[in-house]
Amino acid sequence: MSKVVFRKIERKDLEQVFTLLNQLKQIDISSIDKDEAWNNFKENTGSNSIVGIYKRKVVAYGSVVIENKVRGEVAGHIEDIVVDSDVRGKLIGVSLIKELIKVAKIKGCYRITLFCKEKLVNFYARNGFEVNSVVMKKYL
Amino acid sequence: MSKVVFRKIERKDLEQVFTLLNQLKQIDISSIDKDEAWNNFKENTGSNSIVGIYKRKVVAYGSVVIENKVRGEVAGHIEDIVVDSDVRGKLIGVSLIKELIKVAKIKGCYRITLFCKEKLVNFYARNGFEVNSVVMKKYL
Repeated sequence: MSKVVFRKIERKDLEQVFTLLNQLKQIDISSIDKDEAWNNFKENTGSNSIVGIYKRKVVAYGSVVIENKVRGEVAGHIEDIVVDSDVRGKLIGVSLIKELIKVAKIKGCYRITLFCKEKLVNFYARNGFEVNSVVMKKYL
Repeated sequence: MSKVVFRKIERKDLEQVFTLLNQLKQIDISSIDKDEAWNNFKENTGSNSIVGIYKRKVVAYGSVVIENKVRGEVAGHIEDIVVDSDVRGKLIGVSLIKELIKVAKIKGCYRITLFCKEKLVNFYARNGFEVNSVVMKKYL
């Protein structure tokens, strides 16, 4: 297959990214105020989110949340990794993780974390991650 | 004991917060450029970090990292929870978590997550958190 090209997300990608993320978690896309979502996102997380383009289509999305700690350390956290189900099994996920690690390095992160289900531990372990602790969640 | 008072972190708390965080993870505090650390922190994470004051001393610290997702959702992540070892066992940790949940609600978070070691799962479960997935970490 031709190569997937990764780049920063742009406003024009929103529709396709929304649809792609519905493969991860289904929400009612039509109810989203795109301008408001984009403005809030751009200021905070946006500059650290990337898309993967294949045949002019967004087939991958992922984000790094940057945390400036009080003692000056910078930590990165990978969120919302998704690869289009039509193109899975072609190592696009591996390339996406590598791109996000690059972003985290540029931002000066000393470490990067991610949450995953048990079944994905081997995938991330092959990409240099080690199991560290437990994620606990509370819905508000 | 008298009540611990929680409030937003201020620049003047830095020295005490640094020392307190050394109970969690020891780093060489003297090498930190305080102004630079404070400026980077304030812009990004700072407005969501709180201290607990007891007898005019900072005895607790915790932070909520706010993530604006591309589809408009807001997620919160608790980081760097520490209670002074001199005053542990007095439920200050419970109050701290409650304060951070309040911050996350004010910021519009739909959920809040945290990483913890297995031995702390029961503590957080008593505070409404459920085990969700695995944390994987990579040092850069």
